[in-house]
Amino acid sequence: MSITEEILSAKEKKRILSSSSAESRNKAILAIRDELVANKEYIFSENQKDLDNAASLPDSIRHRLLFDQKKLKQSLISLEDVASLSDPLDKVLEKRSLCDEMILKRVSVPLGIIAMIFEARPDALIQIVSLALKSGNVIVLKGGKEAKNSNRALFEVIRKALRKTDIPEDFVILMESHSDVSEILSLSGIIDLVIPRGSNSFVRYIMDNTSIPVLGHADGVCSLYVDKDADLEKAVKIAVDSKCQYPSACNSIETLLVHEDVSESFLPLLKAAFEKENVVMHSDKKAFSLIGGIKIEDDEEYRMEFLDKEINIKVVSSLSDVFAHLERYSSHHTDSIVTDNKETARVYAESVDSADVFINCSTRFADGYRFGLGAEVGISTSKIHARGPVGLMGLTSSKWILSGCGDVVSDFAEGRRKFAHKDLL
Amino acid sequence: MSITEEILSAKEKKRILSSSSAESRNKAILAIRDELVANKEYIFSENQKDLDNAASLPDSIRHRLLFDQKKLKQSLISLEDVASLSDPLDKVLEKRSLCDEMILKRVSVPLGIIAMIFEARPDALIQIVSLALKSGNVIVLKGGKEAKNSNRALFEVIRKALRKTDIPEDFVILMESHSDVSEILSLSGIIDLVIPRGSNSFVRYIMDNTSIPVLGHADGVCSLYVDKDADLEKAVKIAVDSKCQYPSACNSIETLLVHEDVSESFLPLLKAAFEKENVVMHSDKKAFSLIGGIKIEDDEEYRMEFLDKEINIKVVSSLSDVFAHLERYSSHHTDSIVTDNKETARVYAESVDSADVFINCSTRFADGYRFGLGAEVGISTSKIHARGPVGLMGLTSSKWILSGCGDVVSDFAEGRRKFAHKDLL
Repeated sequence: MSITEEILSAKEKKRILSSSSAESRNKAILAIRDELVANKEYIFSENQKDLDNAASLPDSIRHRLLFDQKKLKQSLISLEDVASLSDPLDKVLEKRSLCDEMILKRVSVPLGIIAMIFEARPDALIQIVSLALKSGNVIVLKGGKEAKNSNRALFEVIRKALRKTDIPEDFVILMESHSDVSEILSLSGIIDLVIPRGSNSFVRYIMDNTSIPVLGHADGVCSLYVDKDADLEKAVKIAVDSKCQYPSACNSIETLLVHEDVSESFLPLLKAAFEKENVVMHSDKKAFSLIGGIKIEDDEEYRMEFLDKEINIKVVSSLSDVFAHLERYSSHHTDSIVTDNKETARVYAESVDSADVFINCSTRFADGYRFGLGAEVGISTSKIHARGPVGLMGLTSSKWILSGCGDVVSDFAEGRRKFAHKDLL
Repeated sequence: MSITEEILSAKEKKRILSSSSAESRNKAILAIRDELVANKEYIFSENQKDLDNAASLPDSIRHRLLFDQKKLKQSLISLEDVASLSDPLDKVLEKRSLCDEMILKRVSVPLGIIAMIFEARPDALIQIVSLALKSGNVIVLKGGKEAKNSNRALFEVIRKALRKTDIPEDFVILMESHSDVSEILSLSGIIDLVIPRGSNSFVRYIMDNTSIPVLGHADGVCSLYVDKDADLEKAVKIAVDSKCQYPSACNSIETLLVHEDVSESFLPLLKAAFEKENVVMHSDKKAFSLIGGIKIEDDEEYRMEFLDKEINIKVVSSLSDVFAHLERYSSHHTDSIVTDNKETARVYAESVDSADVFINCSTRFADGYRFGLGAEVGISTSKIHARGPVGLMGLTSSKWILSGCGDVVSDFAEGRRKFAHKDLL
């Protein structure tokens, strides 16, 4: 069967999944947990094949690729966590009496079919399957090719688990080649959402090559602005955390803006802290005169996403400068301000048009788990559907259910009845 | 200035608009009302030019094109209504304490720049401008070419009104040619949403020719299912309203499904009612044997959107037949069931995956005003962002605002602090 045929045949399973009870979906998640434990030796041995093939790759990739007892344990906990989250489906989002006995409800429903393309991380496959199952969606998966054997083994074990449950095993579909990915990008109207994770250029490629809605973000050019009314000690601490706590994450900062009134006192403190962390500093003209570093020659450098211990530093003379800089160079993912001036904080929060706008805290908090969303599907910089860290609700849509008693519009159009519109929620 | 240059220069006005108070946006809406009254003779005379040019067009088009004292009065009421609606911006949608003093909020914000392409109806221009203003969005407009002079006059009057307010007049931009429309469709990343209204093929054209998110619907193939446990008298009343109350509306039915157990008793009643209304009936084999009509020869006919007093009638033998029919032929806009069996109604509401799923009432209720949304931007059959009738909230996005006190992620990653995640809403 081609991948398109597989997806078309799964389409019929959508209804079973969307009308399944939360209980049976949670039971299926726990069945996957049990089956992973029962088949762990098989999974470990398949993972070893991938590790052997990846012998020449960097440690960071091999570390993500590894699926051992420890990663298994984390996955089991994560499955239990997802099973215990509240049901994202059938939530009543609006409820209104229109007139007499006519009751209108808007309830959450699954999106339908989601395609997810992600890194070479076998544990990610398990998490994605559990989130799709929890939210009642058919899931079409493609993991990084380095994890091919591990993913195939996990996929088989998951399907084996599902055969013991009420959930159709083919709600999860595995893509194994790049041509599968190209093929599914044309299935607009069949696949409801594509979620790509990976490099900037990869996400951009997906966005440019499909008319299916895409959830995610390509760039993560985040910033920290140190205001003239900032507590400078806090500012240093936040800057170090935002840059160094995990430099390759999308929510790490690439740019530090500082108000000229405090630049002379702040930048030497920052330099000392960054030098301890071996951060390479790129400085604009004013910053260069104060702390040296590599001179920024071209404003286009502010678009750079280093994803490493490297940063652009720029001195600004007003909040308007900050807004103008962000409007031009921010990817509107996460931007943060350090200030003790409440009015400045308010204007900043109101004026900066980014998915996450932070005050006096590290940009690294931009994350579904830290936000308390239970689980994270990804971070969206789109303004449509879901913005910022996306939890299970981002995998749902809604429908309107109107229940009447023989009601017709002509009675209202001709003045015999009138709408009352009474909110019931 | 080209249309792209106009839009790029308005981009800078986005921040003024998004941080404007509800009061100043409402004042601007009322200023437009006053300016329309002050300039009504000019608007009427420009509208007369359009009517003269449209002398050979059908009455239905000329009726929509007309902007007279009566339409003006309706527009003034509609402006007052929109001004009095609650502010869709700065609504706190989620609020959570993450740990100690760290407070996370998700608040509604404008989408940014919206392009709307609509029919030759001058009153629609006024309504669209008021909805965009209320929701703090820059609006790029294109009305049907038959209304060219009227739209230009209204646009001038609206800008004149805005010059007397805090809202920048160029938040509203008028497109006057088809080439303007082609040009803006390429402004992905600048325009946040396109809302096309008009014929099926026009909406489809827009959807196929832009990577900007599109809100709307191309097809409106809606259905009514008369169950074996239906009150047949109510069913006839609902069928007549759903088909005849306004046949050219997208929420009118094109298909009537009837359970075989009641087809012999129901279809003659339906036929009598439809004949009084001059409805042309297309019947499947079983329906034909009972009430005649035009025989349906090819199942593809079920995709037909008549938009007129014409209907397809099909006899089914189970709920599964209904689901299979809808999965294949419904445009998932609005589908309704007539039944007195509560369990059947429940299964139908749960299983039918359409934007609007109705029980014992006319499909014609699928409308933002009737739903109590205050004002309707359009009806979306997309599962992303907004589904079904879309009110002002469909023109908003949200952002996350996290306010802390020097908090860093390393404290949490290294176990010195723990997330509490306490919902505050």
